[in-house]
Amino acid sequence: MFPYKTSFLLKRNTSQALYLQLSNQFITLIKNNTLPSNTKLPGSRVLAEMLNVHRKTVVACYEELLLQGWIVSIPKKGTFVNTDLPLLHYQKSTNDIVKSIKSKANFSFKKSKILERKTFPELTNFTVINDGVSDHRLTPIDDIARTYRRIASKKSTIEQLTYKSTYGNIRLREALVSYLNETRGLQITIDNILITRGSQMGIFLTAILLFKKDDLVVVGETNYIAADVTFSQSKAKILRVPVDENGLNTDAIEKICKKKRIKAVFVTSHHHHPTTVTLSAKRRIHLLNLSKLYNFAIIEDDYDYDFNYNHAPILPLSSHDSLGNVIYLGSVCKTVAPVFRIGYLIAPKDFVDEAAKHRRYIDRQGDALLELTFAEFIKSGDLDRHIKKVLKIYRQRRDLFCKLMTEELSAYFSFEVPKGGMAVWTILDKKYTWKQVSETAKRHQLEIGDWERYDLANNNHNAIRIGFASYTEDEIIELVKKLKQTMNSLDFL
Amino acid sequence: MFPYKTSFLLKRNTSQALYLQLSNQFITLIKNNTLPSNTKLPGSRVLAEMLNVHRKTVVACYEELLLQGWIVSIPKKGTFVNTDLPLLHYQKSTNDIVKSIKSKANFSFKKSKILERKTFPELTNFTVINDGVSDHRLTPIDDIARTYRRIASKKSTIEQLTYKSTYGNIRLREALVSYLNETRGLQITIDNILITRGSQMGIFLTAILLFKKDDLVVVGETNYIAADVTFSQSKAKILRVPVDENGLNTDAIEKICKKKRIKAVFVTSHHHHPTTVTLSAKRRIHLLNLSKLYNFAIIEDDYDYDFNYNHAPILPLSSHDSLGNVIYLGSVCKTVAPVFRIGYLIAPKDFVDEAAKHRRYIDRQGDALLELTFAEFIKSGDLDRHIKKVLKIYRQRRDLFCKLMTEELSAYFSFEVPKGGMAVWTILDKKYTWKQVSETAKRHQLEIGDWERYDLANNNHNAIRIGFASYTEDEIIELVKKLKQTMNSLDFL
Repeated sequence: MFPYKTSFLLKRNTSQALYLQLSNQFITLIKNNTLPSNTKLPGSRVLAEMLNVHRKTVVACYEELLLQGWIVSIPKKGTFVNTDLPLLHYQKSTNDIVKSIKSKANFSFKKSKILERKTFPELTNFTVINDGVSDHRLTPIDDIARTYRRIASKKSTIEQLTYKSTYGNIRLREALVSYLNETRGLQITIDNILITRGSQMGIFLTAILLFKKDDLVVVGETNYIAADVTFSQSKAKILRVPVDENGLNTDAIEKICKKKRIKAVFVTSHHHHPTTVTLSAKRRIHLLNLSKLYNFAIIEDDYDYDFNYNHAPILPLSSHDSLGNVIYLGSVCKTVAPVFRIGYLIAPKDFVDEAAKHRRYIDRQGDALLELTFAEFIKSGDLDRHIKKVLKIYRQRRDLFCKLMTEELSAYFSFEVPKGGMAVWTILDKKYTWKQVSETAKRHQLEIGDWERYDLANNNHNAIRIGFASYTEDEIIELVKKLKQTMNSLDFL
Repeated sequence: MFPYKTSFLLKRNTSQALYLQLSNQFITLIKNNTLPSNTKLPGSRVLAEMLNVHRKTVVACYEELLLQGWIVSIPKKGTFVNTDLPLLHYQKSTNDIVKSIKSKANFSFKKSKILERKTFPELTNFTVINDGVSDHRLTPIDDIARTYRRIASKKSTIEQLTYKSTYGNIRLREALVSYLNETRGLQITIDNILITRGSQMGIFLTAILLFKKDDLVVVGETNYIAADVTFSQSKAKILRVPVDENGLNTDAIEKICKKKRIKAVFVTSHHHHPTTVTLSAKRRIHLLNLSKLYNFAIIEDDYDYDFNYNHAPILPLSSHDSLGNVIYLGSVCKTVAPVFRIGYLIAPKDFVDEAAKHRRYIDRQGDALLELTFAEFIKSGDLDRHIKKVLKIYRQRRDLFCKLMTEELSAYFSFEVPKGGMAVWTILDKKYTWKQVSETAKRHQLEIGDWERYDLANNNHNAIRIGFASYTEDEIIELVKKLKQTMNSLDFL
């Protein structure tokens, strides 16, 4: 007889009922033909004794197997493995199974090259250079979590716990409409806003809606890599125009428009990513005029509007959009903390409506509790207070970083002091390459990061973004020290 | 001279500084050529008097305009509108602008027909029929919000507030791996799981990775509409096979495989959506064998695994997946509450890795705070306790609903009592149409909802899903009463 006694492993300290463990293991034995069809199973009392379980357990197990159709019970004869089951093709041993499940799919799917992104192991005592992110240690997390809990416990919130609008919570949309109209000079209504998960989802939705295969999109040379990748993923063709101290060269864009039909221009007008330059007033007007004349969309990613050190923020192109050419993207991720995936897409109603339809099939809807929390965070003025607070800190960090870089490293690096934002566009002397620097830096516990991504256009500017906002003044001193040690040992070689 | 006195509207009770309001309004006047280039601006003292503001305000405003390049200051001569600005093409009046921004884009974009979904106004005293959603009023919202806040206030959480893995929080992935291995008999490791926003994002990512134009995907006739739409959006061709009391007809699938190369089969094996039938053991094995033989992917959407009333849950196909053919999708949205957009995609590592790369360009990453909260909700056993609690309630609601439907409405409707899930597949007598019922129902404060979506395959089954789980027993009595009134007045006509 089949060695039932030794063929089952029943754990008593798990949440899964014994009879269920038993029936699941029976199913495996039946499936891999260890218990072939028509095998007579022992009576419940016999099996119960062999396995040292209560008879009820075996009865429940058999009932389960009957229900699921794995076994049949023939009156006066007994219980048998169903003869009517097709054989499950030979299975490997459990280890192999786990291994195979772990590693490779047994079906084909698309593999994309352009999505590849370098990641870097988190090493202790290492300073890791980023491209300009906020300091998450300054997040007003306690206030936000307190508000979150208070809102969650409100009676009126219960309605928000089920399926809701794909446009985002109405109160957050209202709060953002008045906030953005007031601070950015927009002239939008509730119909013009879709709540997204950070501005990346805004870029993604925009790309899906705008681009058919080989549609042309104009970007800077060089450009924000995530935008490039997203556009390429939706099959758009990327055209690059030069970027100088006044931002995107709009004359170059006009030249293109005279020859070809372009679908969109992607612009980070406030501080061009990665070079941090601001688009000049003249070019802003020029770009808006071109978009009207040639009916293309301006995708304005205003990722760091709140961070200006020398003067008031410059109003976005969207605030001057008279005919509906601008798709305006922003988020609270950089301003408050990346963990809060809340952003917005501002556009003409028909575009917003279409984007909302697509959004339904991506993630259905946003997080109403978090959205209500941020509606309050904005209306209470806490957001403004937070911005004022960190702005002061980031300015000091910018000043310290630029001062030290000039004093200590001007022989190797040149840069413009950025008027705003969270990073310095740092140009390396042509005598060196970032490849060398990055390799040598590791010896000094300094990780330069993905320096290659800044030269997608291959124009050998030999520059990368170095974020300053996320480091304390001590950490900045440490960073510059390590960078200096790196350059010194490079000279020494 | 230009009527400065009357051309500016300065609000003192807003958060925007006066000088900024002033400069922004100057910019508008310059842009729409009301103040043509080379116009001499009044001195700061003069303007300050005219506008009745402090002189500092005007000075700050002029500095701002200089910085932004809208005006130039010529020593000994004064301040002038920059001659070097291209004219912004004629703008309509502010009202028109708002209107135009509100309504239509001045650029072209794709408009999709298949994304159209009916929405229904929320009317008071109306009973709205849904397709089987959980009762959000049973959400353990206080416990979850308390946990959320506790986690947010932990020192160790600060690290989670910045950019993190696109795979989802590691602790939630670990918690789900052991939870799913134990409850669903899976044999997965941390490498096989990607945290998504509800199972919809899992379907979306899967469709993006699997389908090129005209690739074939097999689904039931009829099928879960959101899956159909998502597949069609990624240009797949949908083939339908019949669904009977044993679920998808796998013989029909085999026939197709012998003729054509199919890319995937979408199956809601536990309770077919919409008909609620369970895929039989025989067909489960058959389908798995076919997937190995013909190397197609099985997309298993296990949307209501936790809700069984007659017997223990049947293990998903994924638990028998020896070669890596199954992509297993689930979520906590239906189990806990739709507002918590947390789901999982379980698949071979290479597929999971590719999905994670795409996810980066959709919404970058999930909500680490919420993910940590649910890691604890699962590990503490609270999730299991919650399921036990609502399962009992939903069973009572199912029994009451089915009892009343049989007693009161068997003349009009026929149905099988569902073994699990949250809805009854309700077949209307052929004498009537759901169109009639839906129209008449409105007169009795009953909203049938989008009854058309259940017959995408046009096989005139004349049936819809009626959810029972989200209504209290009183609400169920009310619903049936309204439905009876509806049918009576239909007969009366």
